[in-house]
Amino acid sequence: MRRPQLEPPLPSGSLPPRVTIYEVGARDGLQNEKQILPVQDKAAFVRMLTEAGLGTIEVTSFVAPKWVPQLADAEELLANLGDLGRGRNRPVLVPNERGLDRALALGVNSVAIFGSATETFARNNLNRTVDESIDMFRPVVARARDAGAWVRAYVSMCFGDPWEGDVPIAQVVDVCRRIMDLGCDELTLGDTIGVATPGHVQRLLDALGDVGIGVDRIGVHFHDTYGQALANSLAAIGQGVTTVDSAAGGLGGCPYAKSATGNLATEDLIWALDGLGVETGVDLKKLVATSVWLAGRLGRPSPSRVVNALAESV
Amino acid sequence: MRRPQLEPPLPSGSLPPRVTIYEVGARDGLQNEKQILPVQDKAAFVRMLTEAGLGTIEVTSFVAPKWVPQLADAEELLANLGDLGRGRNRPVLVPNERGLDRALALGVNSVAIFGSATETFARNNLNRTVDESIDMFRPVVARARDAGAWVRAYVSMCFGDPWEGDVPIAQVVDVCRRIMDLGCDELTLGDTIGVATPGHVQRLLDALGDVGIGVDRIGVHFHDTYGQALANSLAAIGQGVTTVDSAAGGLGGCPYAKSATGNLATEDLIWALDGLGVETGVDLKKLVATSVWLAGRLGRPSPSRVVNALAESV
Repeated sequence: MRRPQLEPPLPSGSLPPRVTIYEVGARDGLQNEKQILPVQDKAAFVRMLTEAGLGTIEVTSFVAPKWVPQLADAEELLANLGDLGRGRNRPVLVPNERGLDRALALGVNSVAIFGSATETFARNNLNRTVDESIDMFRPVVARARDAGAWVRAYVSMCFGDPWEGDVPIAQVVDVCRRIMDLGCDELTLGDTIGVATPGHVQRLLDALGDVGIGVDRIGVHFHDTYGQALANSLAAIGQGVTTVDSAAGGLGGCPYAKSATGNLATEDLIWALDGLGVETGVDLKKLVATSVWLAGRLGRPSPSRVVNALAESV
Repeated sequence: MRRPQLEPPLPSGSLPPRVTIYEVGARDGLQNEKQILPVQDKAAFVRMLTEAGLGTIEVTSFVAPKWVPQLADAEELLANLGDLGRGRNRPVLVPNERGLDRALALGVNSVAIFGSATETFARNNLNRTVDESIDMFRPVVARARDAGAWVRAYVSMCFGDPWEGDVPIAQVVDVCRRIMDLGCDELTLGDTIGVATPGHVQRLLDALGDVGIGVDRIGVHFHDTYGQALANSLAAIGQGVTTVDSAAGGLGGCPYAKSATGNLATEDLIWALDGLGVETGVDLKKLVATSVWLAGRLGRPSPSRVVNALAESV
């Protein structure tokens, strides 16, 4: 089924004409899948995403293999991809200086650090306080910039924390400001546990604007645990955000398990943006075919509604 | 995980303070499930929905059993429910005068008719043209009103048709106007195949307002086939609509099959509205418990993200 094309042009109002999809399936998606894919499949996945028109693709993470065995093959993957795995639009996650060293040694020039808005998650995920994590990021960002790399800063748990519950907006803003003051190019607001709703998104964006972090430097990263990811992404876009994270096929989630903490499915986002007349440059049919192929490699269905609806037509 | 409660009150802007959820799980949901539930389970389901705070519950359909065997027990269900199955907030679907006769004989005083915005669906579903279907509805609505019943008019395929593709807004408005002119109390815009996006919703609501059908008489009914149902419902609410259809647990859909044409899950809608500070009167925990119970009776997982996320906590 085709999306209806309206005869008169849509009243796009304050919607931006174009949104950059920051595709996180190969990193955030695959690191949360039980099944570990062979490096050849990962490289094929990145190639198919590129072919489908995804401009920005986070390729992998240079995290210690003992923590994320799913991505232990970062070096091999980049070697396999060659020039396709490097460049401003092929960021990799670097948790610390050791990760940065590994990335820079391979010629990467676009990196992402991964911080936390809450003390509990900083302790559980980074094994340090928020202050200590910012101290850890300082040389990473400085050295990345010295090397000419673009730097994204993820801040996770911006809308809720599984241990702490509510996370005050003032606290999130404070962490974001301190991380951006390190010299990062882009801030990404992560709803790691998927609890946000659109009003909350709007309020956090407003509060960040009040301290000088405008929507031109902000990306949003929603998980679909409670089915809110698309609505939240559209709320952010309505506020002027033009960088939205999503994962092909909703990778990292499970369509029917309790732990359905997957990213927003890129296909579901594209369906909405195409309908709203917002350009993404992505060929939905090719992307669905990619996700169908990958679901086969992972041996489980995709949690993306669009993928399931269109699977037999691609 | 609890939804974050923001410290300062949410800037609800033009959001209505309260939305009426028109629960369609027992009718639209169950009629699209392969498994036929025994009447005792259906009655228990309606009782649990009531207990969870759902004010308006469409109970069943008085359609010919040969067409919808899932709902062949309409009389038995109403007998089982007694007063709980009747009243202004317990509508039943009546496809024609024969269905109306059956409903009125049982003391029902709230009914819904089911029209089509497109000729192809009218022919395939109602076995008549759109004109002929309106002729068929005329005495149904007149007699229902004479009997003191409240009348809802569903218009299906308002945003796209599986055979015709795009459906012009002018055509939808024309059908809606003619059906409302019969004397119906409420118009419900059905996105039967789930293809709508928020700008389309806004445009149709604007066009209906232009012919005098205001949002105070309009309900919206979105299916989640392409993952757009919540975003579309919120778009309608943002335009002033205060009646939104949804089905407990996303009934009628399948979490991972191609035919994932289920309704918007009531739980996912409640999560969003609670977060936005819009009252619904529904106890989410009780509703999730209801959907978990029903999924067990149906022998398959719920497609609702919220149900899956909270299933083990209720």
